[in-house]
Amino acid sequence: MTNFADRLLGRIEQLEAPIVMGLDPKEDYLPKELYDPRQTDSEAIADAITAFNFGLIEAVHDLIPAIKPQFAFYERLGLPGLSALRETIRYAKAHDLIVLGDAKRGDIASSASAYADALFDIFECDAVTLNAYLGSDSIAPYQAWLSEGKGIYLLVRTSNPSAGDLQDLILEDGRTIYQAMADLIHQWGQDYIGERGFSAIGAVVGATWPTEAKELRGRMPKTPFLIPGYGAQGGSAASAVAGFHRGVGGLINASRSIMGAYQKTGDDFRRAARLEVLSMRQAISWALKEQSYDL
Amino acid sequence: MTNFADRLLGRIEQLEAPIVMGLDPKEDYLPKELYDPRQTDSEAIADAITAFNFGLIEAVHDLIPAIKPQFAFYERLGLPGLSALRETIRYAKAHDLIVLGDAKRGDIASSASAYADALFDIFECDAVTLNAYLGSDSIAPYQAWLSEGKGIYLLVRTSNPSAGDLQDLILEDGRTIYQAMADLIHQWGQDYIGERGFSAIGAVVGATWPTEAKELRGRMPKTPFLIPGYGAQGGSAASAVAGFHRGVGGLINASRSIMGAYQKTGDDFRRAARLEVLSMRQAISWALKEQSYDL
Repeated sequence: MTNFADRLLGRIEQLEAPIVMGLDPKEDYLPKELYDPRQTDSEAIADAITAFNFGLIEAVHDLIPAIKPQFAFYERLGLPGLSALRETIRYAKAHDLIVLGDAKRGDIASSASAYADALFDIFECDAVTLNAYLGSDSIAPYQAWLSEGKGIYLLVRTSNPSAGDLQDLILEDGRTIYQAMADLIHQWGQDYIGERGFSAIGAVVGATWPTEAKELRGRMPKTPFLIPGYGAQGGSAASAVAGFHRGVGGLINASRSIMGAYQKTGDDFRRAARLEVLSMRQAISWALKEQSYDL
Repeated sequence: MTNFADRLLGRIEQLEAPIVMGLDPKEDYLPKELYDPRQTDSEAIADAITAFNFGLIEAVHDLIPAIKPQFAFYERLGLPGLSALRETIRYAKAHDLIVLGDAKRGDIASSASAYADALFDIFECDAVTLNAYLGSDSIAPYQAWLSEGKGIYLLVRTSNPSAGDLQDLILEDGRTIYQAMADLIHQWGQDYIGERGFSAIGAVVGATWPTEAKELRGRMPKTPFLIPGYGAQGGSAASAVAGFHRGVGGLINASRSIMGAYQKTGDDFRRAARLEVLSMRQAISWALKEQSYDL
C-alpha cells in the first residue's frame, strides 16, 4: 500500500499545484442557479450544496490533487448534510481527488478507534485532521490505518487570531507549546516515512504565521504541512510557502476564495473557481521561485 | 433561561447523585436478546443500540440527572448510527435527563459556529465537550448558546495514560499546560456564572488524577467538573470526588460499568444497570462523607 505522503506528494508534483480546495459550504456561498434562499429546510440546502460541490469538483479536478471538506458544515444540516458529505467525497474520489476530512477529532482508546472507523471507513477520507491535546493515546488507534495508506494531520500552530492563547505559551525549556507539539509529531511520524522522505503523519500550520512555519519546518523536516488561512483569512502566497523546503512539503488550502470566486467576478461559479485555482497556482509558483532565490 | 450549571446542580442535589451515564455502545456490550452478532450491517447494529439505550434510560432515568453519549460510537455506523444518536437523545430528554454530548469538537469561526448548530440545534444536546487548543476563538461561537441555557465542558486534564504527553509539560512561569488551560477556562467562565455560583463553562478533569483534580478545584472554584475514568478506567469513588468542594461541583461519568453491568452479574441488563447506579451512588456518597471529615 502506497504511503499517504508519497501518494499526495506524487500528485502535487504531477500537477505542479500544492493546493487543496476546502469545501466549507454555507448558504451565502451558494449560487442563485442552485439555491433559492427562501428554502430553509436542511434537505434543500444539502441538495444545493451537493450540486455546488459537484460543480466545483468538475471545474478543478484536473488542476489540483485534493479537496478538504470541513465536517462542521455538513453536520450542522444533520443527516441530509452528512449524506451530502458522503456523496461529495465519493464524487471527488471518482475524479481522482485525494480527500482530506477536516474533522479535528481528538479522543482516546475505543472512542478514537470509532472515529477512525467513521472517518476512513464510513466517510472514506484519505486523510483527516486531528487534535492531539490528549497525547499519544489520541493517535495510537489511527496507526493501523497509516499502514494502509491513510494519513493524519495534527494541529500545531493554527491560523486563527487567538491561536496563541495556549499554543504560544513558553515552556521552562524555552520551547513554546506549539513547538513541543511539533516535536511530538516529528517523533510519532518517524515510523511512517515514505519513499519521498515525508511521513504519513502531517501537521496543520497556518499560513498566517510564516515565521513560525519556517521554524517549524526545521523542527519537523519530514512532516507534510497542511496550510490553512490562505486568501480570505489573510495569508499571502509568500506566507503560505514559508513552511516549504526546496519547493516541497506543503499543501495550501483555499476555501472561500475558490468557492466564492464567482461572487467577485460575476462569472459562472465553475469558471470562476477554475480561474481562481489557476491564479493561485501561479501565485504559489512565483512565491516558491522567490523563496528559492533567498536560500 | 436557566443557567446550565443551575439546572444541572439542581438536578444533582434533588437526586443526590452526581452521576452521568455514558452511552458508548459497542457490539460486545449488546445483550443477546437485542442483538445477534451475525448481523454486521450498520442498520441492525444501530437498531440494537437504540433499543439498548432506551432500556438503559428507562432503567435509571429516575436516579441520575444526565446521560453522556460519545459521538464517535454513533458516527462509526454512519447515518443509521446518527439516527440512533438522535433518537437516544430525544428519548433521554423525554425522560427528563440532561444530555451532555461528548463530541470534543475544537474549531474556530464559522466552523465552530456550524458545530454549535449541529450539537445544540440538530442533536439537541444540553451541553457538549470541547477542546480549546485553538484558544478563545474556539469557544466564542458557543457563547450565544450559553446565554440560552446551554453548557460547554472544555478538556483540561484527561483521564488517559498519555494525557501528560502535552498537558503536564511545565511552563516558564511554573504552571503546567493543563493549569494554564484551567486558568483560561476560569477566566472565560466568569461571564456565565449562575445563581448557585457555578459557570456554564465547565472542565473535563479525569477521575484517574485525584491530586490534579484537587488542585484544579482551587484554580477553578466556579467551574463544574465533568469527571470521566470512574470504574472501568480505574478511578475509584475517592479519586472521582477529589475535585468536589463541600460536596458539590462535579459530575462523575460511568459508561462501561453501567452498560456492561449485566455481563458480570448475569442479570437482566436494565436491572443490572439500575443496581450498578445505586451502588455507585452509595460509593460516591460515602466518598464525599469521608472527604468532608478530612476538611
